[in-house]
Amino acid sequence: MNAIVNHQFKLARRPVGMVQRSDFEYTQAAVATPGEGEVLVKILYVSLDPAMRGWMKEGKSYIPPVGIGEVMRAGAVGRVITSNDPGIAVGDHVVGVLGVQEYAVAKGKQLTKVDPSLAPLPVYLGTLGMPGMTAYFGLLDVGKAKSGDTVVVSGAAGAVGQVVGQVAKIKGCRVVGIAGGKDKCDYLRSIGFDAAIDYKNEDLKAALKQHCPKGVDVYFDNVGGEILDAVLTQLAMHARIVICGAISQYNEATMKGPANYMSLLVNRATMQGMVVFDYASRYGEAAKEMASWMASGQLKTREHIVEGLETFPDTLAKLFTGENTGKLVLKVASS
Amino acid sequence: MNAIVNHQFKLARRPVGMVQRSDFEYTQAAVATPGEGEVLVKILYVSLDPAMRGWMKEGKSYIPPVGIGEVMRAGAVGRVITSNDPGIAVGDHVVGVLGVQEYAVAKGKQLTKVDPSLAPLPVYLGTLGMPGMTAYFGLLDVGKAKSGDTVVVSGAAGAVGQVVGQVAKIKGCRVVGIAGGKDKCDYLRSIGFDAAIDYKNEDLKAALKQHCPKGVDVYFDNVGGEILDAVLTQLAMHARIVICGAISQYNEATMKGPANYMSLLVNRATMQGMVVFDYASRYGEAAKEMASWMASGQLKTREHIVEGLETFPDTLAKLFTGENTGKLVLKVASS
Repeated sequence: MNAIVNHQFKLARRPVGMVQRSDFEYTQAAVATPGEGEVLVKILYVSLDPAMRGWMKEGKSYIPPVGIGEVMRAGAVGRVITSNDPGIAVGDHVVGVLGVQEYAVAKGKQLTKVDPSLAPLPVYLGTLGMPGMTAYFGLLDVGKAKSGDTVVVSGAAGAVGQVVGQVAKIKGCRVVGIAGGKDKCDYLRSIGFDAAIDYKNEDLKAALKQHCPKGVDVYFDNVGGEILDAVLTQLAMHARIVICGAISQYNEATMKGPANYMSLLVNRATMQGMVVFDYASRYGEAAKEMASWMASGQLKTREHIVEGLETFPDTLAKLFTGENTGKLVLKVASS
Repeated sequence: MNAIVNHQFKLARRPVGMVQRSDFEYTQAAVATPGEGEVLVKILYVSLDPAMRGWMKEGKSYIPPVGIGEVMRAGAVGRVITSNDPGIAVGDHVVGVLGVQEYAVAKGKQLTKVDPSLAPLPVYLGTLGMPGMTAYFGLLDVGKAKSGDTVVVSGAAGAVGQVVGQVAKIKGCRVVGIAGGKDKCDYLRSIGFDAAIDYKNEDLKAALKQHCPKGVDVYFDNVGGEILDAVLTQLAMHARIVICGAISQYNEATMKGPANYMSLLVNRATMQGMVVFDYASRYGEAAKEMASWMASGQLKTREHIVEGLETFPDTLAKLFTGENTGKLVLKVASS
């Protein structure tokens, strides 16, 4: 029996509408002892992602929902403090699905070692983690973005969106980001977006028409709802829409479908869904390329770090109210 | 000046809701004289298609709308009575976009000669015409249907749907048709569909679950609305949805978007729009294959023929109330 106390957030009930503190139970327990092939990780940063809202919902999806009473699922990066896996040493830094807690026991082979001297640890939850992989494969494999294309991305100042836009620029595309508020739009322009549209304060359709005079070749959709419907009216022929998420709809009781979907017919366009896990065998390839772009200064990253595990429910809510710019991360411990 | 009288239906105003007689003007005029390279055609059969409702609407689409005061656009088949095109003889039968009228002057090169000894003339407006081409290329090129796939088609007893299902059977697919009413469903089973669902009298989701135990690989959508939403809940992984039409929505003031479109993400599925004109260079190839299937009895066709040009507005409305089984055609003259 391990004497260290482990604070955890467990799912207490399935949220109705906006996720809130009472949907979780904040508990403590003794840290479990790692078995054969397992390691004990002290969690340093927890990743907060829009997908987490979906994991709280009952019903068929791309992975089973988190059970009531289970530790809330989350990606995290931490430091190994006990290891029964010969491939992982005490002191190694690892990333994996470790949950919203201070300590996690996990199978060594389900973890990936990361090097804090190459990039700050939170980057392994963002641009070099799932959001970065999602951006890379969604844009290039599903969206088939190529030089000369006009690429539009929503949720553009988020963890995925900021990478989509910068990778599209590197590939020679014209890039237009959609985000809420002047600060986010200024940020997008500062990292090289050709244009940024503040959907909270601009006429979205008119702005799309202005900034995408030849129409939209690739739309990378993180938000759904009215923004998806507006972009549908501005498609170029043979456009590709990548359905990565629908954050505007996750806290709604009923989803709003894209009323303008017949634009797919008029423009012989495609709307395709993606789940990043399908590309797991190619993460290494993508991470290597992205790391080289980061090293050369072509790809910038921004993290929005909030301190304290105990703030988890309120910090998670920031994703849905749009308060974060860049990858939202919860700092749990310094080392 | 030609002395023959030509009865015509002209678009009098843009319809609001269900198309009705007062949206058209029934007029008569002297038949025009064909110029250089033109022919005069006596129209025998006029094609009635769901797409016609879209052509009456203002706004950007895949072709310009019919102008107010213009003869209503329609495909038709007829007999040449005067020819100034050396490639076309008096007495030839031709198909083309000739309009809702008794006589049409058209450029010879915009017409296709057809042989009434190989197939009855209305078939050239259906299975060997645009609807058949739409079915063939939509199913095989866009939907990428292959042996072993479960294919679902809506509007299954219509001109396009009946061909989609039979071609899918020929290609080794399991085929489930969705149609309104027992008679249509009986018809679908009689031409080889594995199952037919009467959406007016059955629980659509439960029936889809029963008849598509491995999920839906290809959904050929002619109707949109609630049926599209129901099929979205039953997709197999990597499903392809072909957006061919949305007849349930054409007479509605506002389109209903598919609320369950995030099933595209969960199932890594694709929704793609198509317009048959893009395949014009390959019509010959498809017509040849379809004609051979018709000759061998593998592909059956059914036409729903209504007599009398003057019935046009009421006959067109049958498409939207679902009164037709098979290709709806207006018979204008016998020879």
